[in-house]
Amino acid sequence: MQADALSATFSALADPTRRAMLARLAEGEATVNELAEPFEMTLPAISKHLKVLEKAGLVSRGKHAQFRPCRLEAGPLKDIAGWVETYRRYWEASFDRLDNYLEEIQKEQPR
Amino acid sequence: MQADALSATFSALADPTRRAMLARLAEGEATVNELAEPFEMTLPAISKHLKVLEKAGLVSRGKHAQFRPCRLEAGPLKDIAGWVETYRRYWEASFDRLDNYLEEIQKEQPR
Repeated sequence: MQADALSATFSALADPTRRAMLARLAEGEATVNELAEPFEMTLPAISKHLKVLEKAGLVSRGKHAQFRPCRLEAGPLKDIAGWVETYRRYWEASFDRLDNYLEEIQKEQPR
Repeated sequence: MQADALSATFSALADPTRRAMLARLAEGEATVNELAEPFEMTLPAISKHLKVLEKAGLVSRGKHAQFRPCRLEAGPLKDIAGWVETYRRYWEASFDRLDNYLEEIQKEQPR
């Protein structure tokens, strides 16, 4: 279900370590060891985070190579972007209201 | 911290009921009772979801009125959109690869 896939993606992204892992993979493929390097975490802890990312379809693993390099899969991020885009007019509206307010108080100020 | 705010927002969005509540509030303010109406859930369950949304800054409550209407706050959604936007070139790149592949196999097909 689309709803569940979105929930899995949002849930996977709700952790700063997992987001940092994605940012690292955005620079290129990496083995689990390379991926773990910048973090002060045990390899099992990193593997656990990696599994969450894989399950959400955000990361895939090479099947043939010995080191099974990890790779960013951006498809679920596209779905998130599509979902959040439907709310764009709401945040733009709040900035419009702020703009109008700032214009109003500037008009009221003596020059 | 910005990282924690993002985690709280992603976590709040990782639930289809909470996303449906935001979609309802996108149509206009609502009391908790109005908000609960379309869901087959107890009021305490809805209140719990509402608290998660409030804590993440996605919903605010009116302070003066008796019914404290709930209101969508789109600021955190803008932050999510900003975060995901930095990955746009990755999903566009994968669709480019797919496009190229489809072009290739079309060329290979006899007319």
